[in-house]
Amino acid sequence: MLALSRVFNFSAGPAVLPEEVLRQAAAEMLDWHGSGMSVMEMSHRGKEFTGIIAQAEADLRELLAVPANYKILFMQGGAIAENAIIPMNLLGARKVADYVVTGSWSVKSFKEAKKYCTPHLAAGALQGPFLAVPPAPTFDLSADPAYLFICTNETIDGVEFHELPDMRALGRPDLPLVADLSSHILSRPIDVSRYGLIFGGAQKNIGPAGLTLVIVRDDLLDRALPICPSAFEFKTVAEHGSMYNTPPTYAIYIAGLVFQWLKRQGGLPAMEARNIAKAELLYGYLDSTDFYQTHVEKAFRSRMNVPFFLRDESLNEDFLSGAKAAGLLQLKGHKSVGGMRASIYNAMSIEGVQALVTYLKEFERTHG
Amino acid sequence: MLALSRVFNFSAGPAVLPEEVLRQAAAEMLDWHGSGMSVMEMSHRGKEFTGIIAQAEADLRELLAVPANYKILFMQGGAIAENAIIPMNLLGARKVADYVVTGSWSVKSFKEAKKYCTPHLAAGALQGPFLAVPPAPTFDLSADPAYLFICTNETIDGVEFHELPDMRALGRPDLPLVADLSSHILSRPIDVSRYGLIFGGAQKNIGPAGLTLVIVRDDLLDRALPICPSAFEFKTVAEHGSMYNTPPTYAIYIAGLVFQWLKRQGGLPAMEARNIAKAELLYGYLDSTDFYQTHVEKAFRSRMNVPFFLRDESLNEDFLSGAKAAGLLQLKGHKSVGGMRASIYNAMSIEGVQALVTYLKEFERTHG
Repeated sequence: MLALSRVFNFSAGPAVLPEEVLRQAAAEMLDWHGSGMSVMEMSHRGKEFTGIIAQAEADLRELLAVPANYKILFMQGGAIAENAIIPMNLLGARKVADYVVTGSWSVKSFKEAKKYCTPHLAAGALQGPFLAVPPAPTFDLSADPAYLFICTNETIDGVEFHELPDMRALGRPDLPLVADLSSHILSRPIDVSRYGLIFGGAQKNIGPAGLTLVIVRDDLLDRALPICPSAFEFKTVAEHGSMYNTPPTYAIYIAGLVFQWLKRQGGLPAMEARNIAKAELLYGYLDSTDFYQTHVEKAFRSRMNVPFFLRDESLNEDFLSGAKAAGLLQLKGHKSVGGMRASIYNAMSIEGVQALVTYLKEFERTHG
Repeated sequence: MLALSRVFNFSAGPAVLPEEVLRQAAAEMLDWHGSGMSVMEMSHRGKEFTGIIAQAEADLRELLAVPANYKILFMQGGAIAENAIIPMNLLGARKVADYVVTGSWSVKSFKEAKKYCTPHLAAGALQGPFLAVPPAPTFDLSADPAYLFICTNETIDGVEFHELPDMRALGRPDLPLVADLSSHILSRPIDVSRYGLIFGGAQKNIGPAGLTLVIVRDDLLDRALPICPSAFEFKTVAEHGSMYNTPPTYAIYIAGLVFQWLKRQGGLPAMEARNIAKAELLYGYLDSTDFYQTHVEKAFRSRMNVPFFLRDESLNEDFLSGAKAAGLLQLKGHKSVGGMRASIYNAMSIEGVQALVTYLKEFERTHG
């Protein structure tokens, strides 16, 4: 057996997980809590797994302070599937939904909605560069849209909402705010009651790919179109405790271990403090030099996904190969944006960001 | 650390996995092949994971002898989602699809299709008991259906197709045969070229819940309805090598380990021989006594899912608690059928079936 050598993994997703979680999963792989079974082998309806999913839901509800009138659903398909599943569930008799587009992910959401309704671009643009969140008072809202969609952290572009649109201040207290939180869910406390629905693919800040979380206010459960597949109808999923179809049991188990790890860290206030410290360390260094450049406006920079560019892009390959040699992986930017990107999710330690900054300095010293 | 004590797990799904696979997964959990990452943490677009999925696909293609004009898709949502995804992909301009209903799963498939078309009951019934497969020459086929749907192994009822309908003999060589193989895929060799599409949730005979396999002939890829979500459009999924949305990466990795295990066992001919031996052992004993009863007609008995009943059902609880004490788990029948059910998938050893037969004998001796 090789000596274990873990790297610092800056992947945008699937992404780094807490080492404690992986160690526990490995230790329990053949025999979960004396059951004689792996979690992968358990009937989803048996008492072992129903205990695992109930604990995961309770921990998530506690971490996010989810109000009692919101359902937590464990689904499949990721955010890209939700881009269709959400209009199929929320349109009801309405034909229009409003979208604020602040990056590559909300562009996808807007385009997919065309299959089911007329999406209206309330703010933002369908082409980048995406560098800021438009101020809520400038939103051009439709007369009676089914919902207002936002993506509160754009993984590819590195644009984050640090303030939510205030639907009361906009004079639309009853317009449900629907938000894709895939890449920053659980990175900070949020006020769930300000949303109609939040969702996220698990593979960035929660756990393994193949699990999708949906948290939905229960008055929104009876608006599904007849064409919505039963397996993806929120009401059906809610009524069956996320077991209308077989849920992704092992991914739920891992997510549950991550929720318990988050609680041991001190919950979301502690994670937010740590994430702010990590982001300040990295952006602080990037701002201190012209050798590296960032484009997103400071007020809208993501704490989770940090795109940056070498001033001399002919050095990109050298930068990446040197990073790899230093144990700093998956720093290449998304192909639509180019340059570099460091994703520094909950499970990325401050030591990982320090190691990255050390490398940034050293690379600049030797190539500047 | 507790001494490891594995049970014999007869769950219908999620179900037992080969112990070798679980041991390898545990050993590689924190550091896959010196990458410094868990497979769960890898970008799906990185060279490590693209290698894993390519190997899994190649091994599956080899095991099932999948012809070159069929695409293998790694999807999400399970068979229940496919019940909607399939009509959304295959109806094209047609308004009717034909269904042969031989058990609880094909009932669900038939009912879900009503969201998208007029399903026609070509054979079988919408209510049980389900005890046999209707002979193909009796099928009442529509004039021009989009496809003919069958479920070749009914997990709940224990009814298996041991011969496929011969579409040429039925005078419909161009009618695509669509089959749900969830609970017996990889249990025996099949001739993929006789199907237009086969699919299966992974959690019975392949790997973890949350992965769905679809194998589809490429001339069927351009029939999707405009309402089909992009994430579930076969053509889109195929064109992106199952990476239009983030695939369930860890489940694909485990499935790949199972495919390699199957190859080490001698592939599907060897698995079929072993599965026949296991089924003969169990059915043979059940047939030898009146203390236990089976209902499915012998010619249509499933090799994978064996429902049986105690003649005196007042002994059911005693039977199950004694079985549990003997390390024989998850033998309770599905609530819609009652009684008992032993699922004896590929990963259930002959020793497990022998232990079950020993227990059946002993329970009869002490309660007969």
